[in-house]
Amino acid sequence: MTPKARANLDRLLRPRHVAVIGGRDAETVAAECKRIGFAGPFWPVNPKRSQVGGHACFASVEDLPEAPDAVFLAVPKEAAIEALHKLSAMGAGGVVCYTAGFGETGAEGADAEARLVQAAGNLALVGPNCYGVINYVDRVALWPFTHGGACPGHGAAIITQSGMLSSDFTMSQRGVPFAYMVSAGNQTLLRLEDFVDALCERPEVRAIGLHIEGLKDVAAFERAALKSLSLGKPIVALKTGTSRLGSSLTVSHTGSLSGTEELYDALFDRLGIIRADSPAQLLETVKFLCVAGVPKGRRLAGLTCSGGGATMLADYAERLDLSFTPPDAATAASLRVLLPQTATVSNPLDYTTPIWGIPEKTRPVFDTLFAQGHDAAVIVQDYPAPGLDESKPWYRNDTLSFIAAAKARALPAAVCSTIPENLDEETRSFLVAQGVAPMQGIEQCMAAIAAAAWHGERRAEIAASPTAPLLPQQPAGDVRLIDEAAAKTLLAAKGIAVPHSRIGSGAEIAALSRELGYPVALKMVSEKLPHKTEAGAVRLGLRSAEDVTAAVQRMRADVAAYNPAALTDVFLVEAMVAQPVAELMVSIRRDPQFGLAMTLAAGGILVELLADAVTVLLPASRADLARALSRLKISRLLAGYRGRPAANREALLDTLERLAAFAADPANEVAEIEINPLFAGVHETCAVDVLMQRLSA
Amino acid sequence: MTPKARANLDRLLRPRHVAVIGGRDAETVAAECKRIGFAGPFWPVNPKRSQVGGHACFASVEDLPEAPDAVFLAVPKEAAIEALHKLSAMGAGGVVCYTAGFGETGAEGADAEARLVQAAGNLALVGPNCYGVINYVDRVALWPFTHGGACPGHGAAIITQSGMLSSDFTMSQRGVPFAYMVSAGNQTLLRLEDFVDALCERPEVRAIGLHIEGLKDVAAFERAALKSLSLGKPIVALKTGTSRLGSSLTVSHTGSLSGTEELYDALFDRLGIIRADSPAQLLETVKFLCVAGVPKGRRLAGLTCSGGGATMLADYAERLDLSFTPPDAATAASLRVLLPQTATVSNPLDYTTPIWGIPEKTRPVFDTLFAQGHDAAVIVQDYPAPGLDESKPWYRNDTLSFIAAAKARALPAAVCSTIPENLDEETRSFLVAQGVAPMQGIEQCMAAIAAAAWHGERRAEIAASPTAPLLPQQPAGDVRLIDEAAAKTLLAAKGIAVPHSRIGSGAEIAALSRELGYPVALKMVSEKLPHKTEAGAVRLGLRSAEDVTAAVQRMRADVAAYNPAALTDVFLVEAMVAQPVAELMVSIRRDPQFGLAMTLAAGGILVELLADAVTVLLPASRADLARALSRLKISRLLAGYRGRPAANREALLDTLERLAAFAADPANEVAEIEINPLFAGVHETCAVDVLMQRLSA
Repeated sequence: MTPKARANLDRLLRPRHVAVIGGRDAETVAAECKRIGFAGPFWPVNPKRSQVGGHACFASVEDLPEAPDAVFLAVPKEAAIEALHKLSAMGAGGVVCYTAGFGETGAEGADAEARLVQAAGNLALVGPNCYGVINYVDRVALWPFTHGGACPGHGAAIITQSGMLSSDFTMSQRGVPFAYMVSAGNQTLLRLEDFVDALCERPEVRAIGLHIEGLKDVAAFERAALKSLSLGKPIVALKTGTSRLGSSLTVSHTGSLSGTEELYDALFDRLGIIRADSPAQLLETVKFLCVAGVPKGRRLAGLTCSGGGATMLADYAERLDLSFTPPDAATAASLRVLLPQTATVSNPLDYTTPIWGIPEKTRPVFDTLFAQGHDAAVIVQDYPAPGLDESKPWYRNDTLSFIAAAKARALPAAVCSTIPENLDEETRSFLVAQGVAPMQGIEQCMAAIAAAAWHGERRAEIAASPTAPLLPQQPAGDVRLIDEAAAKTLLAAKGIAVPHSRIGSGAEIAALSRELGYPVALKMVSEKLPHKTEAGAVRLGLRSAEDVTAAVQRMRADVAAYNPAALTDVFLVEAMVAQPVAELMVSIRRDPQFGLAMTLAAGGILVELLADAVTVLLPASRADLARALSRLKISRLLAGYRGRPAANREALLDTLERLAAFAADPANEVAEIEINPLFAGVHETCAVDVLMQRLSA
Repeated sequence: MTPKARANLDRLLRPRHVAVIGGRDAETVAAECKRIGFAGPFWPVNPKRSQVGGHACFASVEDLPEAPDAVFLAVPKEAAIEALHKLSAMGAGGVVCYTAGFGETGAEGADAEARLVQAAGNLALVGPNCYGVINYVDRVALWPFTHGGACPGHGAAIITQSGMLSSDFTMSQRGVPFAYMVSAGNQTLLRLEDFVDALCERPEVRAIGLHIEGLKDVAAFERAALKSLSLGKPIVALKTGTSRLGSSLTVSHTGSLSGTEELYDALFDRLGIIRADSPAQLLETVKFLCVAGVPKGRRLAGLTCSGGGATMLADYAERLDLSFTPPDAATAASLRVLLPQTATVSNPLDYTTPIWGIPEKTRPVFDTLFAQGHDAAVIVQDYPAPGLDESKPWYRNDTLSFIAAAKARALPAAVCSTIPENLDEETRSFLVAQGVAPMQGIEQCMAAIAAAAWHGERRAEIAASPTAPLLPQQPAGDVRLIDEAAAKTLLAAKGIAVPHSRIGSGAEIAALSRELGYPVALKMVSEKLPHKTEAGAVRLGLRSAEDVTAAVQRMRADVAAYNPAALTDVFLVEAMVAQPVAELMVSIRRDPQFGLAMTLAAGGILVELLADAVTVLLPASRADLARALSRLKISRLLAGYRGRPAANREALLDTLERLAAFAADPANEVAEIEINPLFAGVHETCAVDVLMQRLSA
C-alpha cells in the first residue's frame, strides 16, 4: 500500500462525508447511515433520481461539492470502473465497490478487475464483491443491508472474507462491543492485513476478529499481525475453507509432511493469533478480550451457586490447562466462617443457595476467595428468561457482589451462563459497561479465557525473543535432487553431525568399509534416486567385506531393474549409528505461499499412524524450535522417559537451529530437505538419512 | 424397583391429583402448576395456612379426600420423614422430596436418609435434595422455581442430577420440545435408570437427555438404556464431574490402564448413547433427534445462500466424517439450467442471492439437488434479529421451499443458523411444527447430525449382534497374584497361544533350554514377582547353555537383592517369539462399579506417549472386540501398512474373544490380567508376557 493509499484508507474508515453511487442499494446505504446516526454530509450520485434517502442527488461525480472521503459504489461493472477513474482523479478517499462480477467469476471478470485496479489509482478500494465497512464508533455504515450491533465507544474490529458472515455477525445478540465491521470481498487492492494494519492503531479498537478464507501475502500479514500484537490488540481468527482432504500427514520421500492447515496453525502460533473453531467462539473470544482483557496467567477463581456448575467449570478447566487453585489454609478457614455449614470450601466455590442474592453475605465470601490471588474470575449465572424473571434482582445482587470483588482485585472477570442464551440483553449491556464480560456458554467462556491466557503467554514470549520476519514469497520453479553424499557434506559444513563415511567406486568400497569399521551401511550415490529404499539402493548392518561385496552386486542389479538411468558406480559407505533415545523426522519444504516450513515429527512410521508432528515457519529462532519440540508427544521420550536416558536436548536444538539457518539462507537454494531418521542420542544428534532438493536457479 | 413402586412412578409421572406439603415452596409449586395449566385437583396440606395458591388447605395428610398420585414435599427433614410414613400407609403414588440435608451432608444426614427410605415403602420417591418433575405434556409442574420450556405435544425427556442445570434447561430459548424434566437429586430410591425405564415407554417422548454425575448401578442402567434403544428413543448424555486427574493412561504392572472417563466412554459406546460435550450440545442434539429423527446414513445435502456458509458446512462435515456427496452428472446438468450463471454447482450448494427468496426459482433447485438421494438435508439461514427483520419474508420463502423439498423426499431436515441466536422464536416454533429442526450454531448442528447418524449405526449394530448383559457388581476383595507359568497354563487351556516353554529348577534349566532350542527367554517363577523386569527376573535372547547358566545365577542374585521373599528355584524357559506385525497390550481389570473392562492398546511405551487405547466392558462380543480393534490408531499397522505384511486379524480376534470369555466366566475369578506384549503376527497371535491376579475367594 502506498502512503497515499494508506492515507486514503484512514479517510475511508473515518469519513467526514459519504457519497453513494447507485439506485436501490444506495437507498439502503442511506437508510443504514441514518440508522447508525451518521451526521456528516451525505451525497447521493444518480442522474435518474432526484433524491436518495431524503438527500438530494447529484447528477454525476463531478458535481460533488468536494472529493468525498468515502464512497459506496453500487452500479454495473463498467460504470463502476468509469466512476473509479473520476473519483481517483478528483482525489476521493476510499471506495467500497459493492458491485460484483469481477475476478470471482472467471477470466472475463478478471480482466474487468484488472481495469478496476488501474482505475483505482491511490484510492482505498474495498472489494469488489463485498458488503463494505461499518464504523460503529463514528457512526458510519457503508453497508448495503440492514445491520445490527452495539458499540459502547470501543470494541472489536471484525474483518471478514464472507459478506454474509459479516452480516450474521452484526445480527448476533450477545453483547459483543463492535468498533468496526469490514467485509473485504475480493481483496483486490485492500487486503485483510491492510485493515489490520490500519485498525489496530485505532484507540477504540481493543481486539481484532478475522475471518480468513485465504491470505494473499503471508509476509505482509505477519507484519500487520506483529504490529497489532505490539500495540496490545489481540487477534482472533476463524479460518475456514481448509479442506482436510489431502492435508493429513503424508510421508513420502518427495512429498510433504504438512498440509495447508498445519501451515496456518504454524502461522497463528508464531504470531500469537488465537484460532477460533466456530463463528460463535470467535465472537465470545473477542468479547472477552475487548471487555475483560488478557489475564496475566491461568489461575482462576470460580463461583457458582450450584454444585453442577462448579463441577463443569472444573471439568473444562482441566481440559484447557487452566487451574482453579485450591483455597489455602487461611482462605479456607475464613471461608468456612462466612459460608453456610452445608457448603464445601473449594475453588470453584459453590457458595450455596442459603446466601444467594444476599449482598452482605456474598460480598465477603467473594472478597475472601479473591484475596488469595488469581489471574481471572468467573461466576456462573444463568439469568431467567425474560417474562419468567421475577427472581432477577437476586441474580443481579450476586452479580454486583462479584463485580465489586473482582474490581477490588483488578481481576479480568466474566459472568458466564451455562446455556448461552441464559443472559439477557439488559444484563449483557450492564456487564459490558462495568467492564465484566458477559460470556455465553460455559464451555465457550472457558475456551475464551484459556485462549486469552495463551495469547498473553505468546505475547510475552514473542516480545522476549523476536523471530526474524518471514521471507517474501519466492516463485515456484524447477527443483533438482542432489545426491545424499553431497547433501550431507553441505550439512556437515554447517556443524550438523552425519555418520562417519567414505565414498568410492564399487571396487574400492570393501576396503573403505574396513577402514571405517564394521558394521556399515551402504548406499548408491546418484542424483536420480529420491526413493533409495524402494530402489534397493540402501543396505544396512553389513558386517564383513563379503557382506559389502555382495551388497554392491545386489544393489547394482536392483537399481538397474528399478531405473537403469539412476545406476552409478559411486557408493557411500557409512558407519552404523548407535540406537538413539528417539528417532525424529525433520522435513523442510517450500510452500508457494508460506515459504519455508520445518516439520518436526516422531520418526519412522509412527508419524503417519499417530500424527505426532509440529510445523514451524522459517526463519525460526531457537526458542521457536524448542517450543515446537516440546509440543511433540514424543518430547517425553527425549526428556528421559520412565527411567530411560534423556537425549541431549541442546545438541538436538543446535542441529535444528543450524538446519533452519541453512534452509533460510537464500544462498543455499533449498527447495526441500528431509532427514529421516534424525537420531537424537544421549550425547549427539545425527542426521542418518538425508534427502535434499535445491531450486534450479 | 418393585412392581408396586413402578406403578407408583407411573402415577407420579402422570398424576390425576397433586398434593403439596409445605409453605412458601408449596406456594411456588401451586403457581408453577397454574402456569403450566394443571387442571386436576390440587391439594395443599398446611395446618397453619388457610389456602395455598388459591387452593383451600388441608390440616394434615390424613384429611386428603383420597391418596394423591403425586406429592410435593417441602417441610423440614423430620417432618418429611413423618409425612412419608403417612403417605405410604394411605397408598399415595409418588413423592418429590424437595427437602435437603440428607445423605449429601454427611453421616448425620445419611442416617436420616436411611429412615426416609424406610418410611417411603413402595412410594415412588424422587430425591431428596431435588427440584422435582415437570410433565409438559399433561401439564404438571412439581417444581419449586419458575420454569420455562415449550411442548408441541411431544419432545425430550430430560433427566438431570443437578437441579440448577435442569432449571437452566427449562429457561433455554432454542425451541427444544420438552416432554418431561426430571431433577433426580440424591437418587436415594429412584435413580436415573428408573426414569429412563419409565419415560422411554411414553409415546410422547422422542429422545432422552441425561445429565450424569455418577451412576449407582451400571448393570441396571444398561438394561434401561437398551430398552430405550429398542423402543427407538435415543439417549444423549452429558457426563460431568469426571476428573481427568489420574485418569490419564497409566501403565503399571499392577495398576490399571483406564480411568473412569474411559469406562463411561466404553459404556456409552456399548449402548449407542450419544455423548454431548456441553449443555448446549445436549440440547441441540436432543432437539435434532426429537424433531428430525435419526438419519439413515451420513450423506448430506447442504444449501446456503453464501459461499462462506457452504465452506463451513464442508469443513465441519469432513471433521465429523459426514459426506456431502457431489452432484452426479445428471443432477449437475439440471442444476446448471436452474441456477444463475455465476453459481457454482456443488454440494453444499450456494444457490446465490439472485434467486434468494424467490420460491419458483429455489424450489426446483432444492428438489433437483435432493433427488440424487441423501440421508439428511440442511440449509444455512441466519434470520435477521427482531426489529431489524424487514427482510424476514424472503428468508421464510427459502425456508418454505426447503421444507417442501425435504418433505417430498422424507429427509430428516434442519434449518441451521451460523450464529446460534440468529433464529428467532417464531421461526423456531414454526419449524418444529413442520418437523424440521431449528438448529442453532453451524458447528453444533453438524455435530448433532453426526451424532444422530452414529446412533443409527450403533442401533443397527447392537440389534444385529447383541452383547451379553453386564454382570452385577461384585464386591471388591483381596486379590492374589498367580505365577506366570500358571497363568499361561490357564490361558493355553482356553486356546490362547503362549510361547513354547519348559519349567524346571535352576539345575535343570540349561538342559530344558537345549531341548526347546535357542534363543530362549528365562523367567523366575514366583507368586511374589508382579514386577519381574524391575526385579531382574527376566532375561531375553539367551543363545547358549552358558548364557542360560549365567542368567540363572545372575537372576538369583538380583531377585535376592530385590526381594528375598520372592526368590524361588523354579524357572520358566521360553522360546523367543518372532517379531510380530504389531505389539499390543491387553489389560483386563475389575472396576468396582463397571465390573470387568478390557483395554486394547498399542504395545510398549507407545500407549503412554500416544494414548492409543480403547476400552470395552465385558462381556463383549466378537463384534465389539472387532470394533474396538478398528478404533485403535495402530489398526492400520495390523491391516498391512505401506506394503508391510498384515496380521492375522481373525487369529487376533480369536485370542481376544477367548480372553474376554475367560475373564467374564466367574469360575475363573479374574481380578486382573495384563498381557504385554501380545504379539499379533502374520499367522499367529501369542501372549508373550502375562500377569494375572485372581480374586481371593
